[in-house]
Amino acid sequence: MSLKVYNFLTRQKETFTPLHEGKVSLYVCGPTVYDNSHIGHAKTYVNFDVIARYLRYLGYDVLYVQNITDVGHMLDTGEDKVLRKARQMSALPMQVVETYTRSYFADMDALGVQRPDISPRASGHIPEQIEMIQTLIDKGHAYEVDGSVYFDVASFPEYGKLSGRTVDDQAEGSRITTREEKRHPADFALWKKADPEHIMRWPSPWGEGFPGWHIECSAMANKYLGPTFDIHGGGLENMFPHNECEIAQSEAAHDGQPFARHWLLVGSLTLDGIKMSKSLGNTLTIADALTRWPAEGIRTFILSSHYGSPIDFSDEAIEAAYKGWQRIWGAARLLRQQMGQAPDGAAGDAVKELVEQTRKAFVEKMNDDFNAPAALAVLQEYTRQVNTLVNEQGSLSQGSLKALDDLYRELGGKILGIIPGEDAGSASAEREAGLVQLLIELRAAARANKDWATSDKIRDQLKELGIILEDRPDGTVWKTT
Amino acid sequence: MSLKVYNFLTRQKETFTPLHEGKVSLYVCGPTVYDNSHIGHAKTYVNFDVIARYLRYLGYDVLYVQNITDVGHMLDTGEDKVLRKARQMSALPMQVVETYTRSYFADMDALGVQRPDISPRASGHIPEQIEMIQTLIDKGHAYEVDGSVYFDVASFPEYGKLSGRTVDDQAEGSRITTREEKRHPADFALWKKADPEHIMRWPSPWGEGFPGWHIECSAMANKYLGPTFDIHGGGLENMFPHNECEIAQSEAAHDGQPFARHWLLVGSLTLDGIKMSKSLGNTLTIADALTRWPAEGIRTFILSSHYGSPIDFSDEAIEAAYKGWQRIWGAARLLRQQMGQAPDGAAGDAVKELVEQTRKAFVEKMNDDFNAPAALAVLQEYTRQVNTLVNEQGSLSQGSLKALDDLYRELGGKILGIIPGEDAGSASAEREAGLVQLLIELRAAARANKDWATSDKIRDQLKELGIILEDRPDGTVWKTT
Repeated sequence: MSLKVYNFLTRQKETFTPLHEGKVSLYVCGPTVYDNSHIGHAKTYVNFDVIARYLRYLGYDVLYVQNITDVGHMLDTGEDKVLRKARQMSALPMQVVETYTRSYFADMDALGVQRPDISPRASGHIPEQIEMIQTLIDKGHAYEVDGSVYFDVASFPEYGKLSGRTVDDQAEGSRITTREEKRHPADFALWKKADPEHIMRWPSPWGEGFPGWHIECSAMANKYLGPTFDIHGGGLENMFPHNECEIAQSEAAHDGQPFARHWLLVGSLTLDGIKMSKSLGNTLTIADALTRWPAEGIRTFILSSHYGSPIDFSDEAIEAAYKGWQRIWGAARLLRQQMGQAPDGAAGDAVKELVEQTRKAFVEKMNDDFNAPAALAVLQEYTRQVNTLVNEQGSLSQGSLKALDDLYRELGGKILGIIPGEDAGSASAEREAGLVQLLIELRAAARANKDWATSDKIRDQLKELGIILEDRPDGTVWKTT
Repeated sequence: MSLKVYNFLTRQKETFTPLHEGKVSLYVCGPTVYDNSHIGHAKTYVNFDVIARYLRYLGYDVLYVQNITDVGHMLDTGEDKVLRKARQMSALPMQVVETYTRSYFADMDALGVQRPDISPRASGHIPEQIEMIQTLIDKGHAYEVDGSVYFDVASFPEYGKLSGRTVDDQAEGSRITTREEKRHPADFALWKKADPEHIMRWPSPWGEGFPGWHIECSAMANKYLGPTFDIHGGGLENMFPHNECEIAQSEAAHDGQPFARHWLLVGSLTLDGIKMSKSLGNTLTIADALTRWPAEGIRTFILSSHYGSPIDFSDEAIEAAYKGWQRIWGAARLLRQQMGQAPDGAAGDAVKELVEQTRKAFVEKMNDDFNAPAALAVLQEYTRQVNTLVNEQGSLSQGSLKALDDLYRELGGKILGIIPGEDAGSASAEREAGLVQLLIELRAAARANKDWATSDKIRDQLKELGIILEDRPDGTVWKTT
């Protein structure tokens, strides 16, 4: 039973065979850091997080590179996204970049997305981009006009092989403005001459300027993963022109050596059926979503549809996914709570068989192009059976409880990232203060009733937990040790 | 009453006057990211954190740049620190850089160190460094030999003006190896030719190579703060040669325009009287220290000596500082706990006067070259008086409690970063689980005694706190909502 992945390049499901045995090189297009990340970013990066986690689970040594775009991503108006934001914030572009790179990783950390191994920045790889552009010029795939450099799509007959769009299609594309300087409307900028007021600029063989958006991914993927690597991921909405241009640049620069061997693209996320956009005012940031649902609930919602499919975010949809997660986590939590009081003993045969069959079914689903929703369904069925076992049999042995919980940790925790490793879930300072206050009240009541046994028990056990009570004339206060 | 700072460049205390009214440009040498940060780093960056916080408290618009050294910092053996670690870890240099940049910021976040506005990486600013080196060659301050470029110290007569060391002194310095290529032993590398096996390399006008350590700070300070800026900070141990070389490079490249106007350098930290070093095995990482003392305790220890002085770390010394912090925080916490049950009313005159006098004394100390230990002493005296007020007067009014607490938040929280903003301090999942378990036991006892009022109270109040109890045949379990 081997891993199969749907490859956008061939438009079919293929058996995954890495370039170097035991290793997987993975490149995923990262965010443009000019604003807070929204729930659409969460869909893309949670899915690739699970893909990387699953590849590691299979035993692959994964090298995961995900770039940070901090220069060159232009709006339709021709403005750089970071520069526009810097003007709005009256800040330096690099302050904008720092602010939103930080908030991006904070959001990802909060969602339990494991960090990529390398997160290279576009602005930190200008020499590598210039070098690749020069190679493209030298090989006749690019030309310079008045300080800007364009890729000559006519020189690369395979242009369009990922998206299936031809050069002629593109000539009619409404978003492609025909610039006088270009030989063909589909030619795209590798390097742009900087206007005098453009402050993100670097010297180059063609004068002061800045790189185009597409070239960064080609240059950084090549630097860290080599000319050919295993998997290129990203959002489906960037297949054209971004990913198409990456292929053209990289393969033209490397004399036709293939760029990514498998293309895995994530379907889009809509909000109540509508594409999220700031002009419509219907964006939901990850930080806001996290104030309403725990990270595990949001991950479960995202994983409830296949990574390649679109998904619609609505309160009803996420609430349903959240409830599904609560069932799974409730059962796992119950196992852990019972472990303290269960009788000793090894895992029973029924438990062992359930564990084995569940793992097998789960892996089978994940091996089918990382089918997380089907794998989640396996966990739901497992949960149903765990609940039956727990309710029917009364007290399971320590060994049985541990075997059942271990599988939750393995499949739900390590791979899907929806089962917390910590026993008690996340603590809250406010809740903790409320619990102590309640215990102080119960102790006061016990003392009023001269129930010294209870009041001493409360004081002593709090002390064991590191909480010291101090009785003052105006009430009891507490502190932690 | 104005801010005075001790300027290493003039070796005297000067009235601080920024270059542009209302603004402060601050550059601090950041870490070389090849290993976990230790308590010595904590001393440097906590001190500059308090300096930046205090400048902001005074109303300055501070732009704080702190670099990340990820290339070019060589060991005495001539090896690059990052490359050596990469070889030890069998990883790419950029993976090493990612790992330790992340752990550095995680440590700093945990210590309550506010992030710099911009954290530029040396490897992300190769074009800027090449440009400055070319300028130095063009102006006759640098020369190329066989693919490497050296700064010609003889061309910059002011070399040594920060450290007071002369070129002749340095010729005898034991750590400066005389390389055949150099014209003078004190000349230092701006660019180094890369050996074939050196994998961190970039193209340059002088062939493939990599930048020297010193040039990054000159190039990045210039990029983000301009040729002249207000404050340059760092550790005293880097004054020579690193800071001295920065001055030479920057002022030579900018035709004598002054580089940093004020140099503030932090004294070193020893461990039980001995310089920390890995070969001696006496390093204490920040992460390890944080398992023993809360961040506020560590900050209080660091701030208990002046930033410019050396400090010796010992268990006794930090325990003493920690106890001092507990006294301050205990009083602040008590004020907050009493606020819930205090009578209404505005702040009394005695309280208002105490607040005003304390703020005045605190600011006076901080204005004297950021004298944090003296400012801490003001907070200790304040705490003594707060305790007297609270104990003598019984119930202070809401207004008085709030005024007293607000000053703790302002001076101890905002400026020194040792007073938590959250009322309840940090929560612990383990402690929370213990509290709930105790309440479940008390409820079981109440039910056994048919004390339904108490058992209902426990269940209802837990529910309000978001904790649901479920009674099962084999015991009571709980979950959070």
